[in-house]
Amino acid sequence: MAELGYVGLGVMGSSVVRRLLAAGHTVTVWNRTPEKAEPLLTAGARWADSPREAAERSEVVFTMVTNTEAGQAVTRGGDGILAGLAPGTIYVDMSTASPANARALADEVEARGAKLLDAPVSGTSLTVDEGKASLMVGGDADAFERAKPVLEAIGPKVFHLGGNGTAVTLKIAINLSLAVQMLAFCEGVLLAEKSGIDRERAVEAMLASVIASPMVTYRGPLVLGHPDEVWFDCRMMQKDMNLALELGRDLEVPLPTTSITNEFLTAANGMGIGDKDFAVIFDVLASLAGVETEVIA
Amino acid sequence: MAELGYVGLGVMGSSVVRRLLAAGHTVTVWNRTPEKAEPLLTAGARWADSPREAAERSEVVFTMVTNTEAGQAVTRGGDGILAGLAPGTIYVDMSTASPANARALADEVEARGAKLLDAPVSGTSLTVDEGKASLMVGGDADAFERAKPVLEAIGPKVFHLGGNGTAVTLKIAINLSLAVQMLAFCEGVLLAEKSGIDRERAVEAMLASVIASPMVTYRGPLVLGHPDEVWFDCRMMQKDMNLALELGRDLEVPLPTTSITNEFLTAANGMGIGDKDFAVIFDVLASLAGVETEVIA
Amino acid sequence: MAELGYVGLGVMGSSVVRRLLAAGHTVTVWNRTPEKAEPLLTAGARWADSPREAAERSEVVFTMVTNTEAGQAVTRGGDGILAGLAPGTIYVDMSTASPANARALADEVEARGAKLLDAPVSGTSLTVDEGKASLMVGGDADAFERAKPVLEAIGPKVFHLGGNGTAVTLKIAINLSLAVQMLAFCEGVLLAEKSGIDRERAVEAMLASVIASPMVTYRGPLVLGHPDEVWFDCRMMQKDMNLALELGRDLEVPLPTTSITNEFLTAANGMGIGDKDFAVIFDVLASLAGVETEVIA
Amino acid sequence: MAELGYVGLGVMGSSVVRRLLAAGHTVTVWNRTPEKAEPLLTAGARWADSPREAAERSEVVFTMVTNTEAGQAVTRGGDGILAGLAPGTIYVDMSTASPANARALADEVEARGAKLLDAPVSGTSLTVDEGKASLMVGGDADAFERAKPVLEAIGPKVFHLGGNGTAVTLKIAINLSLAVQMLAFCEGVLLAEKSGIDRERAVEAMLASVIASPMVTYRGPLVLGHPDEVWFDCRMMQKDMNLALELGRDLEVPLPTTSITNEFLTAANGMGIGDKDFAVIFDVLASLAGVETEVIA
Repeated sequence: MAELGYVGLGVMGSSVVRRLLAAGHTVTVWNRTPEKAEPLLTAGARWADSPREAAERSEVVFTMVTNTEAGQAVTRGGDGILAGLAPGTIYVDMSTASPANARALADEVEARGAKLLDAPVSGTSLTVDEGKASLMVGGDADAFERAKPVLEAIGPKVFHLGGNGTAVTLKIAINLSLAVQMLAFCEGVLLAEKSGIDRERAVEAMLASVIASPMVTYRGPLVLGHPDEVWFDCRMMQKDMNLALELGRDLEVPLPTTSITNEFLTAANGMGIGDKDFAVIFDVLASLAGVETEVIA
Repeated sequence: MAELGYVGLGVMGSSVVRRLLAAGHTVTVWNRTPEKAEPLLTAGARWADSPREAAERSEVVFTMVTNTEAGQAVTRGGDGILAGLAPGTIYVDMSTASPANARALADEVEARGAKLLDAPVSGTSLTVDEGKASLMVGGDADAFERAKPVLEAIGPKVFHLGGNGTAVTLKIAINLSLAVQMLAFCEGVLLAEKSGIDRERAVEAMLASVIASPMVTYRGPLVLGHPDEVWFDCRMMQKDMNLALELGRDLEVPLPTTSITNEFLTAANGMGIGDKDFAVIFDVLASLAGVETEVIA
Repeated sequence: MAELGYVGLGVMGSSVVRRLLAAGHTVTVWNRTPEKAEPLLTAGARWADSPREAAERSEVVFTMVTNTEAGQAVTRGGDGILAGLAPGTIYVDMSTASPANARALADEVEARGAKLLDAPVSGTSLTVDEGKASLMVGGDADAFERAKPVLEAIGPKVFHLGGNGTAVTLKIAINLSLAVQMLAFCEGVLLAEKSGIDRERAVEAMLASVIASPMVTYRGPLVLGHPDEVWFDCRMMQKDMNLALELGRDLEVPLPTTSITNEFLTAANGMGIGDKDFAVIFDVLASLAGVETEVIA
Repeated sequence: MAELGYVGLGVMGSSVVRRLLAAGHTVTVWNRTPEKAEPLLTAGARWADSPREAAERSEVVFTMVTNTEAGQAVTRGGDGILAGLAPGTIYVDMSTASPANARALADEVEARGAKLLDAPVSGTSLTVDEGKASLMVGGDADAFERAKPVLEAIGPKVFHLGGNGTAVTLKIAINLSLAVQMLAFCEGVLLAEKSGIDRERAVEAMLASVIASPMVTYRGPLVLGHPDEVWFDCRMMQKDMNLALELGRDLEVPLPTTSITNEFLTAANGMGIGDKDFAVIFDVLASLAGVETEVIA
């Protein structure tokens, strides 16, 4: 069993740590808001006083933060992860940054004699909890082989895709389909509903069909009503869409469904409902179809 | 076990008949091209000399044809199904017509003392073969209850959605996602590929992710090369998209991803590759990204 | 000066008749609602008791009606134009039908020894009033040469494009830009407004720029408020978009901006504001941007 | 008459200087490639050895450069414009930067006791040559009034829109319509052409219609063949589209036609024809419609 560090205990990060603990690893955690660590400490995790300390104590140290600024905050400075990386350590960044950022960070990590793997996780915390998450990994092949047993504790499907940045790229390539599949699903639901089919019945039948990806299966029912907890709001979804659209322009790949779907996320923000799970694009489309919903009465 | 009739023995129709025979039913079949019936006759089906005869011999008679003209040909005239419907017979139309057509046909069937169920099947013949097809059914509730045991032999998930036309509507509402999910998948594959990730590796990782609907799972690999057999070509896919777009205009539901994806099916036709499975929209998009494929070298 | 007939006295038809009268022609008119003819009769037009009579009295007879059904009503039957066409008469249909309809009608007219020209007018009644309308004409070249002096009284730019149906096709090819240019204009106005620029000031500056087509020039100001009179409502605009989209599918020409803009016309209908001039797509987009307007307070 | 400075002598910049000289002003010019200044020196302009010197000698100094990097190069450092601004000088930046950049630069200029006006010009150098350009100006109202007589020598329509950044914003709001109007025009041309109408005849008739904005009028004929000189290539056009899309996301304004059109500019780049005038999106669309053009034989 390995000595691990984990920095960033949001909903997803906490799910990952629970699986690492359950697999018998020692996990030292740090989070900007310490309260979020409590259930994990109860479950056996240890507390570090800084990201640096989490790195110093670990063979493999992870980060999972929501944006570039938060990433800077936990890696840089005297208390940052970079300062704590001993030679031979593996640093696994599970955040979704831009591929260019991943490559730049890899160079800095290498300068410390350590190795960076970019390993964004696809799916939600539910997928992780159920042991169904797949991990795409970019970076040095040797470092990947060494980290693999630990990564397999997170999810059974672990893919090495190539050098640093490739895993983030693939995550982005996958995530654009989250929003597009959802908007297409909403178009179908509204067609059914305005044809006189009960919305709940329509969702049930659609979830039994060949279009029911795991994403559609857990997010589709949100068109019937949003839970209090928000999984992935419009702004987070749009961050990934923007990364996709930037990549598309740089690599010269047209992205027709991504670009049009992104405008509906913008509309959710414009309508003031962008802080809900991005399934709220249903409500945006419903407003255009003259259909009332819980969210836009 | 019931006396059944089946008219229309394309790839999908033949798969359905095999399941009905396997469940122990007696099935009388008719097809415009009699040769296609041969494997089924070997497997125990009986031959009818006309659609009318198939109807006359059956408690439940099915049709599955590819377009409105073919539908007219097997239902109308002295040899047509309508002429052979005895009072009490159930006529199950598994074709995807427009909802308005389904309702009009229902009236004619009723005038003969019989009942129409519209029951388009979602998925491919593969889904049917594996016993995973779901059936959505529209029409009279009593007729549905009587036909249900027979329908469950085709696929385990059988949904009664409402009056005639509702099942076709839901099929259309589902099928628009086939094309949209595929185009979004292609956008991701091309992003990954132009980032330097091997196309095959990208597909493998994407199929292990939360966006892998059954449709994406069986059609996604077509971006690596098309098989000789075509499941659902661009023109058939576009027929369903057009039904969706017409419904959208009539019911006043905007369909942003459907409409833009439909233009890429048009492009496949314009480029002269519309007779391939609609996964060929990958090749359309690849041509815009300057990526060579098998289809557009 | 010629003996002319004119059937269909909507806003546009009336403007055309006024110009024909002003040029010194004799014009016999008919309209389903006779009251609309009154100002024209005052201005010198004569009344016919049926479309047939209007045709019988004329060397050149015109129709301008809003849809296929109205077209049938004035051409068919004992009182219809076809019944009144003497050999040698020229029948000029200024309505926007489908190109296929234009070709079918031409055959029937020819069977009477007469000739059909399809001559849809581009622009609004304002453009006609100002003598700036352009006329595209499809049909027989000799008939075109004979009718040309009369047509030039309507607008100075008269184009012979080819056989029957070509003029309607070009009209459709032009009209798709009406809606697309308008939606793009609205996108710009809302960007400016949410940046803090006064909407009226933004419109003024935009109308002084290179994007100010005649259409944008007269319709752009509608984003500041709708007049009581509706020039061209969403349903009429969508009729033309649908003709374009059908042609696009038949001819295999992808229409990306047309298709997405059309969904915003659908949205206007869905939101219950489709009976306003199609400039109301501004209000649709404004609702998505969280901006209040007169129409959607 | 005023002492003016002008930095950046591309096609557009040179046109502007010619008009300023023609109005009787003294103009001191600088350009990174001095050869481009020669025709202007012959016409009476004076040469400065640096942007700083151009600023030092002027009451009003202009810049017109193509991107942010070029802008930095002429404003910063010991030889830059900022170093040469005396108190009371007006600095008019005619480049299209982001609104945020315009505001940041304004602060630096103000720190030198001078004033910045952002005054991007709409239209092409042709529009300027013909004296039809319109100028939108952002920045301090007093500085605007002082500069106005000079600006009117460039084009007769000069609009003060508000504080710094507003003029650039409006330019972006206008420019998105350039690409969208062009793509919609191309859709129409291809519909007409595949209907059997000669492409040249179709363009002629469309340019006589209400959709013929000045932009469509001068760029539309490019679908018949590209000249050697490129006015505004796909990458330049896409730079403006990206500014629009960024603004749209920040201000929460959905931009449906802008976003989809932008993907066709990406396609032009992907197909390797992005260095042509952006009218080349015609050729992109033609390739999807199976129509050969000069560019994509």
